[in-house]
Amino acid sequence: MKYIFVSHGDLAKSILGSAQMIVGEQTEAQAFGLYPKDDIGGLKDKVKQAIEEFGGGSDIICFTDLFSGSPFNAVVGLMGDYPIRHITGMNLPMVLEAFMSRMNDTNSAEDICAKLISEAPATFIDVNNYLGVNLED
Amino acid sequence: MKYIFVSHGDLAKSILGSAQMIVGEQTEAQAFGLYPKDDIGGLKDKVKQAIEEFGGGSDIICFTDLFSGSPFNAVVGLMGDYPIRHITGMNLPMVLEAFMSRMNDTNSAEDICAKLISEAPATFIDVNNYLGVNLED
Repeated sequence: MKYIFVSHGDLAKSILGSAQMIVGEQTEAQAFGLYPKDDIGGLKDKVKQAIEEFGGGSDIICFTDLFSGSPFNAVVGLMGDYPIRHITGMNLPMVLEAFMSRMNDTNSAEDICAKLISEAPATFIDVNNYLGVNLED
Repeated sequence: MKYIFVSHGDLAKSILGSAQMIVGEQTEAQAFGLYPKDDIGGLKDKVKQAIEEFGGGSDIICFTDLFSGSPFNAVVGLMGDYPIRHITGMNLPMVLEAFMSRMNDTNSAEDICAKLISEAPATFIDVNNYLGVNLED
């Protein structure tokens, strides 16, 4: 399984870097950012090149930062040409789970996406409620 | 309302930077990262100083990257000393919503946290399912 992270600014590179601080250095993972001076076509070309380098197959999952943002749209624009999977709204717990899930070779991209989408909502936690600290009531 | 972002590595700084690409430059928002050479006490001291600079009150929300990670633990360690709120699992849509929600002065930190936690699960989207593209069935 191969992963491509795409975002506004440095978020994609940083989420990959922060994940690697926890799960160790990862191969077959690339990250790309859209910067104020960039055009979306340039970003799409970079992601396309990464998809090609990864073999262009159905074992590629792209993660983007924000539904309907420009990085999201760049990836959507490639979904017609390549059998990639695409999840948006990435956070660090999701990225860590993605790296752990691909250690099991029997998991397909569809299996991993289903697992990530199912488990992701529980990664958002109101810590005050969780710990019962500083609540107004 | 004042926001503090805390993460492994550059993720917190990048999520704030990427959010500002979209909603514009923000005041009363700071970001801190834990790096391989750092100890958690140093990170906790930096967050504590930011809380003090922000007045140490109940109008501060801290966002962390990962439940039970060291950045999370640094913030939890300050929740006994300050009436701050703390949400973990941050992603870009949540951070954008936080900046938009604080434009309404009548929203308390508790109101904003409740809104973020309620809306966050819907920010994770399996784009293949959403668009009906590249599905195996």
